[in-house]
Amino acid sequence: MSLAFLDLPIVLAPTAGAATVDLVAAVSEAGGFGILPCAYSAPDQILRDVAALRAATRRPIGVNLFVEQQPYERDHARIASSHAALRRYRDELGIPHPDVPAAPPEHYARQIEAVLEARPDVFTFTFGIPEADVLARFREAGIFTLGTATTVGEARALRDAGVDGIFAQGSEAGAHRGTFLAPVEESLVGTLALVPQVVDATGLPVIAAGGIGDGRGVAAALALGAVAAALGTSFLLARESAIAPAYRAALKSARAEHTMLTRVFSGRSARGIPNRATAEVRDPEDVAPYPFQNAMTRDVRNASAATGNAEFLSLWAGQAAALAREAPAAEIVASLVREARAALDAARPRIPG
Amino acid sequence: MSLAFLDLPIVLAPTAGAATVDLVAAVSEAGGFGILPCAYSAPDQILRDVAALRAATRRPIGVNLFVEQQPYERDHARIASSHAALRRYRDELGIPHPDVPAAPPEHYARQIEAVLEARPDVFTFTFGIPEADVLARFREAGIFTLGTATTVGEARALRDAGVDGIFAQGSEAGAHRGTFLAPVEESLVGTLALVPQVVDATGLPVIAAGGIGDGRGVAAALALGAVAAALGTSFLLARESAIAPAYRAALKSARAEHTMLTRVFSGRSARGIPNRATAEVRDPEDVAPYPFQNAMTRDVRNASAATGNAEFLSLWAGQAAALAREAPAAEIVASLVREARAALDAARPRIPG
Repeated sequence: MSLAFLDLPIVLAPTAGAATVDLVAAVSEAGGFGILPCAYSAPDQILRDVAALRAATRRPIGVNLFVEQQPYERDHARIASSHAALRRYRDELGIPHPDVPAAPPEHYARQIEAVLEARPDVFTFTFGIPEADVLARFREAGIFTLGTATTVGEARALRDAGVDGIFAQGSEAGAHRGTFLAPVEESLVGTLALVPQVVDATGLPVIAAGGIGDGRGVAAALALGAVAAALGTSFLLARESAIAPAYRAALKSARAEHTMLTRVFSGRSARGIPNRATAEVRDPEDVAPYPFQNAMTRDVRNASAATGNAEFLSLWAGQAAALAREAPAAEIVASLVREARAALDAARPRIPG
Repeated sequence: MSLAFLDLPIVLAPTAGAATVDLVAAVSEAGGFGILPCAYSAPDQILRDVAALRAATRRPIGVNLFVEQQPYERDHARIASSHAALRRYRDELGIPHPDVPAAPPEHYARQIEAVLEARPDVFTFTFGIPEADVLARFREAGIFTLGTATTVGEARALRDAGVDGIFAQGSEAGAHRGTFLAPVEESLVGTLALVPQVVDATGLPVIAAGGIGDGRGVAAALALGAVAAALGTSFLLARESAIAPAYRAALKSARAEHTMLTRVFSGRSARGIPNRATAEVRDPEDVAPYPFQNAMTRDVRNASAATGNAEFLSLWAGQAAALAREAPAAEIVASLVREARAALDAARPRIPG
């Protein structure tokens, strides 16, 4: 498969909530490769979004889905205790507490069909490996497949499944950990250590993700053997980013200097800026498994965002969040390229020969 | 202060147990900068070792100490329960169980005097910041001071104390976490994210450490803005390394692919390859605080090593351990330089302009 979709070695990682069609198109038009986050989109929404993206840019199209095991198993006890724990936040935010906890949609199979119908150039996925027949259909359709690995073992599993490339997600990365083989706590490998080992283990094109905050990180990713650097947090402050003002303010503040892993918003481990929700909901029993927790906290997160309150909202951010800049996406892409070039040019004379 | 001690941008990190005078001298003679680990050495030993190193190489001399708060506070309850927990390992190894737990020496002030008397070119330290008057004496002696930071906050504290340079230790690093301001669990920042932020925050020369397994990592460290890359694990398999055969075998095996943080050997969080000791001693109450745990487990670790048993021995290793190579130290240094050059030369054409 061809890497022709990579013009510049800059990828906009799938960042749900930030990367609307506007941001994805802006990054792609600037020569980067934007990936449209479709994991939380209904199948018809995926078709509409890809059509809108195609209308906005003639550059190659990439989409991302979460790999789901459906039907979901319901953990009734933890769903109930999470539901009870959320009441105080709904009271504080002045929104109604539903009688029945919200449930996640079970439309993964139809999301896959929608993506196949939408025919992007690149299909990226997270949290596992689609069934062999599904991957075969993408292959037959000529769609480049990119799986997400957080360990060398996961990268080998993806290679064995026949993917065309690997997203190597280091422990620095913001938002959800893509981990799917071992517990997240045992799968936190830094990008600098992970990338060359995934390159060696798979022989596949590797896109480095995690902790890449500016062009120095892009240069480092390339030096490690990656074909491109994926950045999510660095585009959250882009003019075209759709994040809530309270989230934007938190990212621009000194708070962005520290991040942590939490399951409180979605039920799955993800990195973000600490706030009251991450500090107060500490008992794992009060968090429903993914994706139930995600569905159940949606109204709380939305209300928090709508009222300019950053305390009950997922403030996803990677460990280089403090390097993020507020600018049009095209300017961010241009800065990344300029800085990466300068970083490599400055590094080279330090090595004799 | 001058960075003249850096001929090549390659530093042998202080690796107690591996980096004897032989290994330090071999790295330095090859153009790298070797740091002699002196934290566990009595003051007269420090003087003897620096003299031996000076006899072995005319290259600049670096030493490392741990910053200690003495006298130590004794946690009698945890010392007692750790002592009880160690009995089974002594029984299994066939060594006597002492009536009284071993206690650490309290010679930090005399270690400082010994280093000042030995007059190395560079003094590096870990786990905190020496008192202002101590740092002033190093400065007056014309000794370059390098403090260890695991977070941007620690780097700022070191800069404010007037150090000449910073060791930025990313979460990938093997052996002890240098963390001294916040809990270790909140201070695990990947090297790729940490280094540029420390460079920006301090304006000081930064040496990158953690997860650098071969020349690709060296190239990445330089691209991130570091003046040099420090490697510890990558030199553990050097011909001149003094590690036990069982430790060497573990590093060469598939076990080296996974590492974890543990307090079981020293009382302080450190990264290494899992073994029976890390798996079996899980109750924090069974681990005495540093440095008591370190003193108390010494005979167990030594007996484990002496009998070729890797299960009760600290198998310190970073997250790029699987990239380590068995070769003379000079060959490892030469490979790192050659690979770093190739990595930068391969990366540059990927960036237009």
